[in-house]
Amino acid sequence: MDQTLAHLQSLGLTLPEVPAPVAAYVNCVRSGNLLYLSGGLPMDGDNRIFGKIPSDVSIERGQEASRMIILNRLAVIHGELGSLDKIKQVVALNGFVNSEPDFYEHPAVINGASELLIKILGDRGKHSRTALGAASLPLNVAVEINLVVEVED
Amino acid sequence: MDQTLAHLQSLGLTLPEVPAPVAAYVNCVRSGNLLYLSGGLPMDGDNRIFGKIPSDVSIERGQEASRMIILNRLAVIHGELGSLDKIKQVVALNGFVNSEPDFYEHPAVINGASELLIKILGDRGKHSRTALGAASLPLNVAVEINLVVEVED
Amino acid sequence: MDQTLAHLQSLGLTLPEVPAPVAAYVNCVRSGNLLYLSGGLPMDGDNRIFGKIPSDVSIERGQEASRMIILNRLAVIHGELGSLDKIKQVVALNGFVNSEPDFYEHPAVINGASELLIKILGDRGKHSRTALGAASLPLNVAVEINLVVEVED
Repeated sequence: MDQTLAHLQSLGLTLPEVPAPVAAYVNCVRSGNLLYLSGGLPMDGDNRIFGKIPSDVSIERGQEASRMIILNRLAVIHGELGSLDKIKQVVALNGFVNSEPDFYEHPAVINGASELLIKILGDRGKHSRTALGAASLPLNVAVEINLVVEVED
Repeated sequence: MDQTLAHLQSLGLTLPEVPAPVAAYVNCVRSGNLLYLSGGLPMDGDNRIFGKIPSDVSIERGQEASRMIILNRLAVIHGELGSLDKIKQVVALNGFVNSEPDFYEHPAVINGASELLIKILGDRGKHSRTALGAASLPLNVAVEINLVVEVED
Repeated sequence: MDQTLAHLQSLGLTLPEVPAPVAAYVNCVRSGNLLYLSGGLPMDGDNRIFGKIPSDVSIERGQEASRMIILNRLAVIHGELGSLDKIKQVVALNGFVNSEPDFYEHPAVINGASELLIKILGDRGKHSRTALGAASLPLNVAVEINLVVEVED
C-alpha cells in the first residue's frame, strides 16, 4: 500500500496521467539513489497555464501552475518507482518563472510547489531550492520546475 | 579500443579539441560515479554561433549550436576518462537558449543536442532534460548546455 | 580546529550569519556525500545588492555580490557540517546574473565567486560551472548562485 498516495488523496488531490515529454528526452533518469526529473510543465489535458507573470498570469495562478507541476512530477516518480513511499527526500528543486524583467516575486510563485511538496511528503518534502526568472519558457508555459529526489534502495 | 568514438566517427563526426574554460573554472568535476560538466558553448576554433534565437540565429542554426556543444562536451569527457565507452548514462541535460521574450520553441533547439546524444550513445544517451530561455548568455552565444553523466567505476 | 575557517579569516574575511531562506525551503540538503545548496542571494544585514547588470549595478559590484554569496553559502555549509574542513570538493556552481538582454560578461561577474572559492579552498574550490543571464531574480538581487559540494563522510 502506498501511504503517501493515500495521504495525497486524503488532501483532495489526484495524480494526473504521466505526461509525455514534449521532445527527445525522458521524464526521469535514476543514478544510484538519486532520481533526476526533467523540467515539468503546467499542463494536464486541456488545463494548461500559459503566459508571463504577472502581465498574463497572476501570482496566484502561477502558484497553481507550480502545484500542477508538482503533481505531474509525483506522477512521474510513481510511474518510475511504483510507490511514492519510496521517496526518501526531495533534494533540490529548480523553479523557472516566465517573467517580465521587472518581476521580483519568484519565491511566492514557486512556494506553490514547495508548500505542496511539504504538505504531501512532510519532512521528506523539504528541499534546497533555486527560483529565478526565465526570459521565455517552452510552449510559453508560465512556470517550469525540475527536481532531484533521493529514493529508497 | 573506444567503440563509442569509433561509432561517432562512423557517423561522419569528429571530436574537437578540448575547449579551454572561458573563466576561473574547470571543464568537469567528478564526484563518485557522477561527472558534472560545465556549461558548454557553441565555439570550435573560428566556428562560433552568436546571437539570439530566432532574430539573429534560426532554429536550425540553434540546433547546429546544440550539436557543437554536445561534441565539445564529449571531447571533455573523453579527455577526462580516456574513453567514451566509460559513459554509463547521461543523467541530466540543462539547455539554455539565448531567447527573445516571445520565443517558445526551446525544445526544438535543444533537440539538436538530445538527438545527437542518442545517435552516438544509444540508450546510454537518454537523459532527463530542462530547456529554457535565458535573457542573455556569455559572449552572446546562442545556446549553452551543461550535463551530469554517470560513468563507469 | 577549522583550518579552512582560519585561512578564510587570515584573508581578512568573515562568515556572515547563516541566512534565513526567503521562502518555503531549506538552505541545504545532504544526500550521501553531496550537499545541495539553495540559490544564495547577495544580502548580509543592510548590505544588499539589487538591480540589473550593467545598467543598475556595475560588473565590479556584481563581482562583490558574487563574493557575498560565496561567504553566505560557506556560512550555510559551516552551520550544516560544523567545519569547513569537511568540504572535499566544490562540484558544481550555477551562477545567474540579473541581466539586460545585451549583456555578455556573465563570466566576469561570476568569477567573483569562482576566484574566492579557489582562494579560500585551494584545489578543493575548483568547480564545474554554468553562468547565464536571468530575465529577473528574486527581490531584484543582482546575482544568485547555487552549489553542489562533495563533503567528507
